[in-house]
Amino acid sequence: MRLLRVGPHGAERPAVLDPDGSLFDLTGITTDIDGAFLSGDGLERTRDALAAGTLPRLADEPRRVGAPVARPGKIVCVGLNYADHAAESGAEPPAEPVIFFKASNTLVGPDDEVLIPRGSTKTDYEVELAVVIGRTARYLDSPDEAAGVIAGYSTCNDVSEREFQLERGGQWVKGKSCETFNPMGPWLVTPDEVGDPQDLALRTWVNGELVQDGHSGNMIFGVHHIVWYLSRFMVLDPGDVINTGTPAGVALGRPGQPYLRPGDVMEVEVGGLGRQRQTLGAA
Amino acid sequence: MRLLRVGPHGAERPAVLDPDGSLFDLTGITTDIDGAFLSGDGLERTRDALAAGTLPRLADEPRRVGAPVARPGKIVCVGLNYADHAAESGAEPPAEPVIFFKASNTLVGPDDEVLIPRGSTKTDYEVELAVVIGRTARYLDSPDEAAGVIAGYSTCNDVSEREFQLERGGQWVKGKSCETFNPMGPWLVTPDEVGDPQDLALRTWVNGELVQDGHSGNMIFGVHHIVWYLSRFMVLDPGDVINTGTPAGVALGRPGQPYLRPGDVMEVEVGGLGRQRQTLGAA
Repeated sequence: MRLLRVGPHGAERPAVLDPDGSLFDLTGITTDIDGAFLSGDGLERTRDALAAGTLPRLADEPRRVGAPVARPGKIVCVGLNYADHAAESGAEPPAEPVIFFKASNTLVGPDDEVLIPRGSTKTDYEVELAVVIGRTARYLDSPDEAAGVIAGYSTCNDVSEREFQLERGGQWVKGKSCETFNPMGPWLVTPDEVGDPQDLALRTWVNGELVQDGHSGNMIFGVHHIVWYLSRFMVLDPGDVINTGTPAGVALGRPGQPYLRPGDVMEVEVGGLGRQRQTLGAA
Repeated sequence: MRLLRVGPHGAERPAVLDPDGSLFDLTGITTDIDGAFLSGDGLERTRDALAAGTLPRLADEPRRVGAPVARPGKIVCVGLNYADHAAESGAEPPAEPVIFFKASNTLVGPDDEVLIPRGSTKTDYEVELAVVIGRTARYLDSPDEAAGVIAGYSTCNDVSEREFQLERGGQWVKGKSCETFNPMGPWLVTPDEVGDPQDLALRTWVNGELVQDGHSGNMIFGVHHIVWYLSRFMVLDPGDVINTGTPAGVALGRPGQPYLRPGDVMEVEVGGLGRQRQTLGAA
């Protein structure tokens, strides 16, 4: 299933797309796509209602699409998780996952404007496969248990300000948590429809030029390893989002470091999870 | 005013202490002490009701005290913000604030059990002055504007696992976000009652021995500077918590590095903000 949230920022309503691309209203089943919905029987009830044909269809009209989950308790990110991106960043491939957080209030819809922060000259893009947690994960015994706590997958653009991240002292979070810095969506896709999460293409275009062209099979630490690993250091809650790292091709690693400017357009896609399109503005 | 939340974990009710130490129920005014309460007129209505004597008094009986705010959107932490702690950590005093996040689901009450993570041998304490945000802060023009967005102050113990933080690759968050790692409270104290936030004593005792004995006047970056600085990198929301750093005396910096063990007792206090007492258990 492909779940999504449509409507104005902060007032999105839950919806589901059927295989033909028709959009159905989920407000009769849940008030939102959030941790309570994902950890309860919401997905099963949605599947049943879709099969029974009892969901009201939403009219075909232009609609803003929001992030496919309500504001999560945390957005966890994995750094340097593709060897080619570690190399372009001048870093060794890590021996165990590098973890950082983004502020949850950076979450915006897949086609919302992204704001270049005031004083920024090094705003950058990062296409990532995002994992959405569906069940509490605490001290999982092995990566084999990870599949049981994953509600689905989505696309995130882990927007980053490289000067704030790397040249302003201390920890990366400073360049990762600026307003609008986490476009997500369009869909939350359930695992049955995604298939193997390590067999997905990841691509970014800036102003129409293909700049990132990676594959989730090249992750240093795979999705199940990451979820298991995180559960040893923190409690993952339903609705939490994990950005699993970006392949090579970010502006930081390209000749001339062509960072983003107001008016630029990013398109970001993970295979089967839909495409995003953001125009850059100024904060 | 001294606001607090009493009752079982996850089902706390809002309350207020009067100057005599009598406890009054706030459920007629708000369902919780959270961002909506703090950013609206909740504090004013509480003050008026307390003055008018219209709040129901809660009976004198033993009660668990929870964290004084509901789960925040983010817990932002300032690292190495006291020169003596930077020195004991083997770090230079930072040129600008070092920022990291803790997971919001680490928040527990001031006297709750703290769990030593599985596999941990280096669990440590950090007494900190915590700031609670009351109004959205986005690109404040100067530190002078910070007072207008602060709802109040509290005590936090920024519990840390030093191996996870410093020896496991990458960013500090890995040693900061373990379950139960942010005891907070007992009270949220409004600024009028705190006075100068740079004139507060900070102390920690472990098994009765005074191990941290600092003063907020020794912060490298003061509270107003920190709030202004953060607002340039992220949007601070009502209900967000900022831990402003710890003075010297943590186990990492003491002779023999006497890290915490199950059964140890931490007592943590910021002057005028109340004292915490946590027993260490095992996760």
